[in-house]
Amino acid sequence: MAERGDATWGRPVVPGSGRLRPLGLGEVRFEPGFWGDRQRLGGEVIVDHCRGWMTRLGWIGNFRAAAGGGSSAGREFADSEIYKLLEALAWEAGRSGRDEPERAVAELAEEVATAQEPDGYLNTRFGWRGPEIRYSDLEWGHELYCYGHLIQAAVARLRTGHDDQLVSVARRAADHVCQEFGAAGRNGICGHPGIEVALAELYRATGEDRYLEQARLFVDRRGHGLLRAGGLGAAYNQDDRPVRDARVLRGHAVRALYLASGAVDVAVETGDRGLLEAVAEQWRNTLAARTYLTGGMGSRHTGESFGDDFELPPDRAYAETCAGVAAVMLCWRLLLATGEAHYADAIERILYNVVATSPALDGHSFFYANPLQQRSPAAPADGDAESPHAAGGVRSQWFSVSCCPTNLSRTLTSLAAYVATADDHGVQLQQLTTCTVRTALPDGRAVGLRVDTGYPWTGTVTVRVEESSGGPWRIALRVPPWADGAVLTHADRRQPVGPDGATLGGVPGYVSVEASWRPGDEFRLELPMTPRWTRPDPRIDAVRGCAAAERGPLVYCAESVGQDPALRLDAITVDASAPPADHGRADDLDGAVRLRCSARPVQVPEAGWPYASNPDGEAAGAAPLTLVPYYAWANRGPSSMRVWLPEAH
Amino acid sequence: MAERGDATWGRPVVPGSGRLRPLGLGEVRFEPGFWGDRQRLGGEVIVDHCRGWMTRLGWIGNFRAAAGGGSSAGREFADSEIYKLLEALAWEAGRSGRDEPERAVAELAEEVATAQEPDGYLNTRFGWRGPEIRYSDLEWGHELYCYGHLIQAAVARLRTGHDDQLVSVARRAADHVCQEFGAAGRNGICGHPGIEVALAELYRATGEDRYLEQARLFVDRRGHGLLRAGGLGAAYNQDDRPVRDARVLRGHAVRALYLASGAVDVAVETGDRGLLEAVAEQWRNTLAARTYLTGGMGSRHTGESFGDDFELPPDRAYAETCAGVAAVMLCWRLLLATGEAHYADAIERILYNVVATSPALDGHSFFYANPLQQRSPAAPADGDAESPHAAGGVRSQWFSVSCCPTNLSRTLTSLAAYVATADDHGVQLQQLTTCTVRTALPDGRAVGLRVDTGYPWTGTVTVRVEESSGGPWRIALRVPPWADGAVLTHADRRQPVGPDGATLGGVPGYVSVEASWRPGDEFRLELPMTPRWTRPDPRIDAVRGCAAAERGPLVYCAESVGQDPALRLDAITVDASAPPADHGRADDLDGAVRLRCSARPVQVPEAGWPYASNPDGEAAGAAPLTLVPYYAWANRGPSSMRVWLPEAH
Repeated sequence: MAERGDATWGRPVVPGSGRLRPLGLGEVRFEPGFWGDRQRLGGEVIVDHCRGWMTRLGWIGNFRAAAGGGSSAGREFADSEIYKLLEALAWEAGRSGRDEPERAVAELAEEVATAQEPDGYLNTRFGWRGPEIRYSDLEWGHELYCYGHLIQAAVARLRTGHDDQLVSVARRAADHVCQEFGAAGRNGICGHPGIEVALAELYRATGEDRYLEQARLFVDRRGHGLLRAGGLGAAYNQDDRPVRDARVLRGHAVRALYLASGAVDVAVETGDRGLLEAVAEQWRNTLAARTYLTGGMGSRHTGESFGDDFELPPDRAYAETCAGVAAVMLCWRLLLATGEAHYADAIERILYNVVATSPALDGHSFFYANPLQQRSPAAPADGDAESPHAAGGVRSQWFSVSCCPTNLSRTLTSLAAYVATADDHGVQLQQLTTCTVRTALPDGRAVGLRVDTGYPWTGTVTVRVEESSGGPWRIALRVPPWADGAVLTHADRRQPVGPDGATLGGVPGYVSVEASWRPGDEFRLELPMTPRWTRPDPRIDAVRGCAAAERGPLVYCAESVGQDPALRLDAITVDASAPPADHGRADDLDGAVRLRCSARPVQVPEAGWPYASNPDGEAAGAAPLTLVPYYAWANRGPSSMRVWLPEAH
Repeated sequence: MAERGDATWGRPVVPGSGRLRPLGLGEVRFEPGFWGDRQRLGGEVIVDHCRGWMTRLGWIGNFRAAAGGGSSAGREFADSEIYKLLEALAWEAGRSGRDEPERAVAELAEEVATAQEPDGYLNTRFGWRGPEIRYSDLEWGHELYCYGHLIQAAVARLRTGHDDQLVSVARRAADHVCQEFGAAGRNGICGHPGIEVALAELYRATGEDRYLEQARLFVDRRGHGLLRAGGLGAAYNQDDRPVRDARVLRGHAVRALYLASGAVDVAVETGDRGLLEAVAEQWRNTLAARTYLTGGMGSRHTGESFGDDFELPPDRAYAETCAGVAAVMLCWRLLLATGEAHYADAIERILYNVVATSPALDGHSFFYANPLQQRSPAAPADGDAESPHAAGGVRSQWFSVSCCPTNLSRTLTSLAAYVATADDHGVQLQQLTTCTVRTALPDGRAVGLRVDTGYPWTGTVTVRVEESSGGPWRIALRVPPWADGAVLTHADRRQPVGPDGATLGGVPGYVSVEASWRPGDEFRLELPMTPRWTRPDPRIDAVRGCAAAERGPLVYCAESVGQDPALRLDAITVDASAPPADHGRADDLDGAVRLRCSARPVQVPEAGWPYASNPDGEAAGAAPLTLVPYYAWANRGPSSMRVWLPEAH
């Protein structure tokens, strides 16, 4: 098997079959705008930031040190951060054609190669507690996990037209894994999934069956208690039950989502519909009961894990940035396999409210955990020190476990590759963003279009055809489920788009226009950007009696900075009988649209036993409460914050 | 200095000064009843259970193994469990005069003594990760913490009239600590406090000043960053700020409460009023914002720690049993020092709703964490295996970290010593329980009385004088703050007891009767046992819109076992406009009084995205919901449970 299409197209995921074909970095180009700006931040600021820290901390130096028998800096999975950075640099080099990331790839690959052993084994640490025998601690050693990220970096090189040293190192490592862990080898799996998805992609990029077979083996072996269960239980690393028997995601959120992504890849490539449906069901149940309004996943700090159904505390939400990255990986795969718009809806929610939340607006500090409530302003971060833990209240420049900045960088630098898809009939715009799309239909006709929009701040999306060579084809735009009252204007005709992400001759969740397009043709979709209040399922006990403001794809929050000092966020109610109102752009938050609603301070009891027969009443004076997009909070110094606002009764 | 009073009186805490004098096991004797039954369970069942498990797991064998250079079983603090068991056995032997616990003390002391080194050092592990150099890992090694429990066991022996091998071993260890960590020695403290309170008590029991001085040094050294701060931060072991500068308890709850207890002892013995007031303020602020309705403390599994103010999730409440034990230790000290009834109120709440919750009714399994909500029934515990983690949904026979069963045993076996106090004018009954009290007033007059009550099920407490030798003296009973409408009947006169735990010629929170008592005189206090709804401070976000039922000192909960199957606990509201009603005794829960209220099932959305603009309405049919005392839950098989019940609006 070989991948369909041009190897230089820059696509992170290239399924051998499925309802939709992904368009890559060579086909979709952002123009300046919300996501275009962030892709640039990822490729020009965050990658340098990560490289600088990892140079300073010695993580990059680990490879030469290991080759020389020296000790290694950082945690047992530090190698993976260099690999994630390599993947980011590969996408950035391929997309931009700039020299700097290209040179960085070559330099880092050179470092990495020094530590590879003759049989392909490559790790600067071995095991968990100091230098140990290889594969002696599969539960915690992260060796296979690290290979996974190495291989994903190599796939990024292959898919941007390079078959270089990095690819060669990764293939030798992958071959070593197949040898060591094949059907006739060790009956083992890694405590942290990640190798599965990587091997499946390497199979796709190279056509070598053994990589797919190894990915399948790793997926099938999990859930049979091969790993020693520690205090966190076998569910922590999804070894409690086979992937195809599970009903919901559980345990460590990133592990669960990486594993599910790999399982989808295996299912798609092997035609295993049962496995695909099992993962789809797990996703549905996870979304219905274990996901925050932001799309964040992982309710517990303990084990960085999913909690029970409806256990979704806003204050102790872990909602790790990497879980957001991993959820996008999973949804993208399910979208390509099924063509169902709700997966793209989820991607939009996660991108705007988890992935975009992590980096500071300047790209030099990051959230690891993404809680929905911060009771007291956190202490300012010490910019020169690694953050020892994943505190949620303030962004940190770097972490002792620093998976999130590098994971973010590889996502942002490849972001345009998650915007559009194609099928036999035309192109689907999965995300509404200012960009150009140039691709070819299966019959060879070149097509091109340009999208202009102020989304997510304004709701008008204009599509202009720039290239078309005869005959009808379709352009579909996803209509988000909240966009009740959307209107399509085409050929001077305004047509209301039906409720529930309704259809106009297409798939549910999309509005689709088919025409024999000529360059210069346009149409326009108008989405209602009216702010709205959203309330939780009554089983989500932790936010009972509260409402959250949303506007378009964005979740909003109240932040203490810039707020009326009479309104202490820990003791207010809001009047949610009227919707929140637009309240202009915030100059200090890159022009984000603010909202406003009416709030009242709540009387709190005197200090003492905090339980009594009668709840306290509300104080008299209402005051306006300003809301900002959740992703933008904590960019103006430490603050208290809450997404869920208690409703006045 | 020498302790006042008889060394055989069996008192866990004997301050050199203070408003109240504690009455010991030789002075207060339970008759059968709620606490008398539990003291017997502790002394006759739980101690044997603990000894059996620790024999089987090799923890007791560790001492001989260490002496022989062998490796040790269990965690680095396993020694302390043997010491806590020894303390329990010492109280039980002293109180009951039975041979069996006396023999057990001798046998275990013999084991312990084998591992003591010539200079007094005694630990079967050294450090954290396998045999290491002594005191090389003060953060995690728990060596000083273990001494603390050894010394407390020895103090129990001294205070029950024995100066035996255990005392000798403990004194040698204490002398070693003073030598090693004295003013001229290592400037170190233990990651886990506990040594402070133990050394202060050893000073009290022996009169040796150096032990007090060492306790003072340990208290004063903390808070200056002597310990390496790990990922949990310096607050984890209270090393973030000096004890006298802190405003609230924080970090690991048991550590914080043990340290505070030690600080009170040091403050009382050195006359340090500033230190005493600092701890009292920390307690006030902790009670006001970091304590569950049950009296449970510790909101986070991560770090077994206090959370932020008002971070009190019911489902993820850690509320460790040992934190309940430690909170009783602290409150008892503050009560003796200040005479303020609210400390005894807190002890009552914690004893009934945390300490009594931990053991199963049969005394053979235990809760470690005590959450206030369990969404789904937990899997039944494997009776033959240690529980690897502190799950809250089901009691376990033993834990890998098994601090709670032994801590519970030493508390239950000495429980009668927390019931009554005396001052120059008479006796105060701090807990309302069936018992006899015999003591002497400072002027030498012997006094005796008997208390009869069906409390906590019924509200009548009858006090009959059994011994009195002329002249007036006072008998005071604590009146709990919820007991609005209490009535005192004395000499055929019924007198309403004022609101707010009002006074009748005594200290706030007590009703006090002074008379020239003669044997056979009686009086009666009647407490209103009407069930009531209690609501949270509006800043406790996690239980907004909910009410909890209480009756007397007991917190109630709804449990799925024995409930109308139409009422799923995750989707109900209760009608809290009328108080819950008594609903007879539960034969399957040792006769506990049940309550009943009216509830309705709540309609829940179809599976899907669990956030929407409109909350779902309530279903039509009301049904009766049965409530049982929280301490009694999960005694009839795994169940779901909740204390906080959403109120219908």
